[in-house]
Amino acid sequence: MSSEFGRALRISVFGQSHGRAIGVVMDGLPAGEAVDLEELQRFLNRRRPGKNPLSTARREGDVPEFLSGLENGKTCGAPLCAVIPNTDQRSGDYSELQDKPRPGHADYTAAVKWAGQADMRGGGHFSGRLTAPLCIAGGIARQILARRGVYVGAHLFSVGHARDMLFPLHPTPELFDAVAAKPLPVLNDHAIEAMETAILAARESQDSVGGTIECAAVGLPAGLGEPMFGGVENRLAAALFGIPAVKGVEFGEGFHAAALRGSENNDAFTVENGLVRTETNHAGGILGGITTGMPLILRVAVKPTPSIGRPQKTVSLSAGETAELTIHGRHDPCIAHRAVPVVEAVTAAVLLDLLLEGNHGTF
Amino acid sequence: MSSEFGRALRISVFGQSHGRAIGVVMDGLPAGEAVDLEELQRFLNRRRPGKNPLSTARREGDVPEFLSGLENGKTCGAPLCAVIPNTDQRSGDYSELQDKPRPGHADYTAAVKWAGQADMRGGGHFSGRLTAPLCIAGGIARQILARRGVYVGAHLFSVGHARDMLFPLHPTPELFDAVAAKPLPVLNDHAIEAMETAILAARESQDSVGGTIECAAVGLPAGLGEPMFGGVENRLAAALFGIPAVKGVEFGEGFHAAALRGSENNDAFTVENGLVRTETNHAGGILGGITTGMPLILRVAVKPTPSIGRPQKTVSLSAGETAELTIHGRHDPCIAHRAVPVVEAVTAAVLLDLLLEGNHGTF
Amino acid sequence: MSSEFGRALRISVFGQSHGRAIGVVMDGLPAGEAVDLEELQRFLNRRRPGKNPLSTARREGDVPEFLSGLENGKTCGAPLCAVIPNTDQRSGDYSELQDKPRPGHADYTAAVKWAGQADMRGGGHFSGRLTAPLCIAGGIARQILARRGVYVGAHLFSVGHARDMLFPLHPTPELFDAVAAKPLPVLNDHAIEAMETAILAARESQDSVGGTIECAAVGLPAGLGEPMFGGVENRLAAALFGIPAVKGVEFGEGFHAAALRGSENNDAFTVENGLVRTETNHAGGILGGITTGMPLILRVAVKPTPSIGRPQKTVSLSAGETAELTIHGRHDPCIAHRAVPVVEAVTAAVLLDLLLEGNHGTF
Amino acid sequence: MSSEFGRALRISVFGQSHGRAIGVVMDGLPAGEAVDLEELQRFLNRRRPGKNPLSTARREGDVPEFLSGLENGKTCGAPLCAVIPNTDQRSGDYSELQDKPRPGHADYTAAVKWAGQADMRGGGHFSGRLTAPLCIAGGIARQILARRGVYVGAHLFSVGHARDMLFPLHPTPELFDAVAAKPLPVLNDHAIEAMETAILAARESQDSVGGTIECAAVGLPAGLGEPMFGGVENRLAAALFGIPAVKGVEFGEGFHAAALRGSENNDAFTVENGLVRTETNHAGGILGGITTGMPLILRVAVKPTPSIGRPQKTVSLSAGETAELTIHGRHDPCIAHRAVPVVEAVTAAVLLDLLLEGNHGTF
Repeated sequence: MSSEFGRALRISVFGQSHGRAIGVVMDGLPAGEAVDLEELQRFLNRRRPGKNPLSTARREGDVPEFLSGLENGKTCGAPLCAVIPNTDQRSGDYSELQDKPRPGHADYTAAVKWAGQADMRGGGHFSGRLTAPLCIAGGIARQILARRGVYVGAHLFSVGHARDMLFPLHPTPELFDAVAAKPLPVLNDHAIEAMETAILAARESQDSVGGTIECAAVGLPAGLGEPMFGGVENRLAAALFGIPAVKGVEFGEGFHAAALRGSENNDAFTVENGLVRTETNHAGGILGGITTGMPLILRVAVKPTPSIGRPQKTVSLSAGETAELTIHGRHDPCIAHRAVPVVEAVTAAVLLDLLLEGNHGTF
Repeated sequence: MSSEFGRALRISVFGQSHGRAIGVVMDGLPAGEAVDLEELQRFLNRRRPGKNPLSTARREGDVPEFLSGLENGKTCGAPLCAVIPNTDQRSGDYSELQDKPRPGHADYTAAVKWAGQADMRGGGHFSGRLTAPLCIAGGIARQILARRGVYVGAHLFSVGHARDMLFPLHPTPELFDAVAAKPLPVLNDHAIEAMETAILAARESQDSVGGTIECAAVGLPAGLGEPMFGGVENRLAAALFGIPAVKGVEFGEGFHAAALRGSENNDAFTVENGLVRTETNHAGGILGGITTGMPLILRVAVKPTPSIGRPQKTVSLSAGETAELTIHGRHDPCIAHRAVPVVEAVTAAVLLDLLLEGNHGTF
Repeated sequence: MSSEFGRALRISVFGQSHGRAIGVVMDGLPAGEAVDLEELQRFLNRRRPGKNPLSTARREGDVPEFLSGLENGKTCGAPLCAVIPNTDQRSGDYSELQDKPRPGHADYTAAVKWAGQADMRGGGHFSGRLTAPLCIAGGIARQILARRGVYVGAHLFSVGHARDMLFPLHPTPELFDAVAAKPLPVLNDHAIEAMETAILAARESQDSVGGTIECAAVGLPAGLGEPMFGGVENRLAAALFGIPAVKGVEFGEGFHAAALRGSENNDAFTVENGLVRTETNHAGGILGGITTGMPLILRVAVKPTPSIGRPQKTVSLSAGETAELTIHGRHDPCIAHRAVPVVEAVTAAVLLDLLLEGNHGTF
Repeated sequence: MSSEFGRALRISVFGQSHGRAIGVVMDGLPAGEAVDLEELQRFLNRRRPGKNPLSTARREGDVPEFLSGLENGKTCGAPLCAVIPNTDQRSGDYSELQDKPRPGHADYTAAVKWAGQADMRGGGHFSGRLTAPLCIAGGIARQILARRGVYVGAHLFSVGHARDMLFPLHPTPELFDAVAAKPLPVLNDHAIEAMETAILAARESQDSVGGTIECAAVGLPAGLGEPMFGGVENRLAAALFGIPAVKGVEFGEGFHAAALRGSENNDAFTVENGLVRTETNHAGGILGGITTGMPLILRVAVKPTPSIGRPQKTVSLSAGETAELTIHGRHDPCIAHRAVPVVEAVTAAVLLDLLLEGNHGTF
């Protein structure tokens, strides 16, 4: 079991970058939920490359075909399967990589794992392309959540050393929409130029650059999640590390909390309109693994794209000695901005799963 | 399902801080494995408080009693259950907290979750005390791993702004032992004074301070873990966030990778003694969720202890209005150093689980 | 993962027959549920041996001690752990069996599985004694279900060739109680004599005899369970086969349905008091894996106790040749009647788990 | 989570009878396994209808298309997805059934479960058509098992009151092949006529008839499976009840064991060619949930097809009163013979999953 997550809602992703199709099965969706296909397509388009010079030139239609589970525009209770045919493959680009694993890629570990039988053309099952079916699942989850007043949004918090601002204490759905509409999904427009400069500089050096993404969810009830290993943090982290290139996940103050005093990091409780709230949200909306009812706040670290144009040192697996490798073909100088909707998608899918499980404390 | 993790090896933790006992069930241990009880006790003692002025004065015996699964000093294949009776409870300290949730604690979220029925004396099931059974499980896992050449060790990387150095490229079991023997488990002795100062300063201010822990595992085979959601990172993170107060988890360069170029972050492959290795280890021993055979490197962020002596603002749940709270009784000004063996324990348990599953690629 | 079942409610059983204690962890119980310990003890007593000449003379107290999860007589949301110390072990009886596996027992398969390291004294973890903690879990589940109008009851349907009648179309809680109060739990008192005769005849021949148990649950809502592998039948069967000696599970007409015509086996729908009901219940309350709202009906086959007094042919594992074995000590000539509350317990636990998961179709 | 099973090998089935396509995802297959597509097609053809007057006239191509996981005829480690487009749907046949649930079908329970939103044309996700993707999965599993000396075969043991003989003590792969090649898959050719007579008689009466299937697996190692709820019986039963119309599952003597004495049911151990074997196999190759190394033997009960031509009593859900229903269109008078390869498929998939998990006792 590798490419699945969820309990009440199981999401299973399949496909290789240069195989016949990629897709997703969602088992456990509530029945009778309308899926707005145009809205879903807009969401999918947010991760598409090729919109500007910041991304690879590969053109992918990314229009999902629904094989099951969706009838007359509504979920019908049965597992939903959606696929995206792979059309724009240029497998010729990848032949050398069978023998010379790309540094920073899964080429070597997949070769060990699968005894040389892996289909690693274009990154195979490890490719960022697999985030497209994840976005189908998450895009559907987002629509269902929104219908219940839960909204998920994210922004690019940093690219290299260029930084956006952090989410305000109470992000709104309108803010999420506004961010998503920008050429780079940031809160502070002033960050765009510095980020673009960082990306283009990396590109010019035949190099790449990493980034971080901040994601929020508002409208969640208090009491979601369970203690210890069933916590909201545990389940989100378990899924978020499934996004290729994610190397860190933190909630609320996260790593920054380690440098704080308790008096700085504790969030004072207060009462607002009869509801218990906190005056600050250093906890990121989670205490003891369980939601407080404040916005959920998390950040993920996305490493720089390992595919870079410069010659790199690697090994020839057949020769058993070091070798030089120059990766040809298309590659993004930065994938962090394209990962923004993916982080939203995974977050939304996990939250919907948690909500579908209900609150086991009572029934 | 909340207080359990693992697949081939299921670890289930039970108990409340002030209940009759705390304990753990390990289902799926290999049979015939000797458990050195003295070594286990030494491991458990590493998380015990009361050794120096840096910790709470509460004295806990923490001597496990084995109810099942261990006969004549060896595992027998059946589930192992170990319990630690709770003896030094002073529940009187906690009566006020039923109504006034402590900021930064799970008091409020547990009250919502369990409709006011939670036993939150001493933090209840959310207490750091529950890390003792985790250390029993992890201590046993460590012994089994060591027998197969896999060693897990950790150090306190930071307390507040005081920092240790990072692990070297190839940590050794001897280094792990040396660190564990110190009054504060650090690599660089010079860090001890600054960290102690930070902790004592927090204590004097009736405050607390957070920290970070770096953990390594050496001797792992390449090819462990699965793509996407079954990756080593996913499974470690899902378990590590179950340690109370952990708010962030990162692997290799982690969040720092976001500020790097691909040419800086990629690890060049090389051949050493006929084995494929990397010259650097920014990946923390994991590519595509699968181990490379290089040391596994992770860091976790531990927030400052939420229990502080200063008066804090909270709410009275019964009155529905804000209130002031002063927490009396014992509490640690820092728990990060005590969490070091806990991080080792959880890491060891997850790695043993992964090894027990075998490599599904072949059979 | 072997000795656990459940999703929202995880039940984990530990212990060996002659170890220090046996017990159970229940993770996921709703909070605030009163547990009537006297009622629980009465339920546990139903599986106790030694009440009459039909059972072994071993005396077991079977009084559970609650280590966690139960405070002031109510569940508190945290995992509940209950243990029963083993006191009346006569391990001397079992020394020969290390080398000579008993026919029909797990001695041989456990020896293979655990490479000769299994603790098989008294059957070890495979012993019928492990049904005591199962009954703790199921007894608590029964109380919680009853509070919501769901009642689970069972009767001994057959012993050898002696047969009771089948449950009526609509069993009642009162009927369940009346059956449980009898010396042998049957519907038709006339069956008692024939069954006792069968058991005593087996005993006199130093032999044993099997039986079947019919179990019913009333008050279940329609719509519980999921299609295909998530069906009520699937989940009940997966758990019921965990009861030692169970070799068959069937629902409604079960195997008898194979000999029927569709016109005989189909249950006509009708309307009663505004509710959709069926006029007959050949389906056992389940269609497509999902409850119809009619009583759930299942039967399990319990094989004859493999421990018999007669000399039997086996092998000496050390000598690698056939050998004769005479099993000394205490053993039941029939365990089917003692398994009646165990079947109720497992059924109740699975149904509570299903109810706790909620109906994923809507939320 | 409903339409999935397995641990190391997850099998997820999707599709509705009259949707766009049906299919399966297999996650966890070993890499580098050749799939013989012609052999797979022959296996799939065994469940196809339309071969003789005993089945419905609906023609289904049932040729799988592989979207992922299979490259150059071999598994590549990534999840395998195979789909079968639905081409021969006559949805017009089913319009009345939206309001009038068919007795014995899941129409009513699905309507309750999914609040009237289910796509139940042709039985929707509950249709026997979904056994085609199950057979793809099981057919691939069978090929992988055979390569390791494990063979799975089944025969139609009974139709109505007509009976075949039981498997011999040691069934062979050749026997499995011979059975599969017959017009009705039985051991004893004399059974064919009686079974055909039973099916045709049911058909003439616009009725249907049930049956039982016996399945065996040979070549399994001893020591497979785990105690209690992780047993081979538990896991097979959990999956087998996912086949539509299955209402009972038994192992070895199964329900018949309940009428036996211990001295009759116990299998004497013996030594053959240095291996521990049993002289009889009443246990069906499983003791304590763990394989003995003897053939695995199980039987499943298949209820009579609920779709029959006769008028039946049901209710109008909209009117809230009883109504008469006549089901038009195509339906099989018996599905038990078509279920034979499906039982093999599910058994093979579960056994491969167990083998892939390895023996957790040692590593």
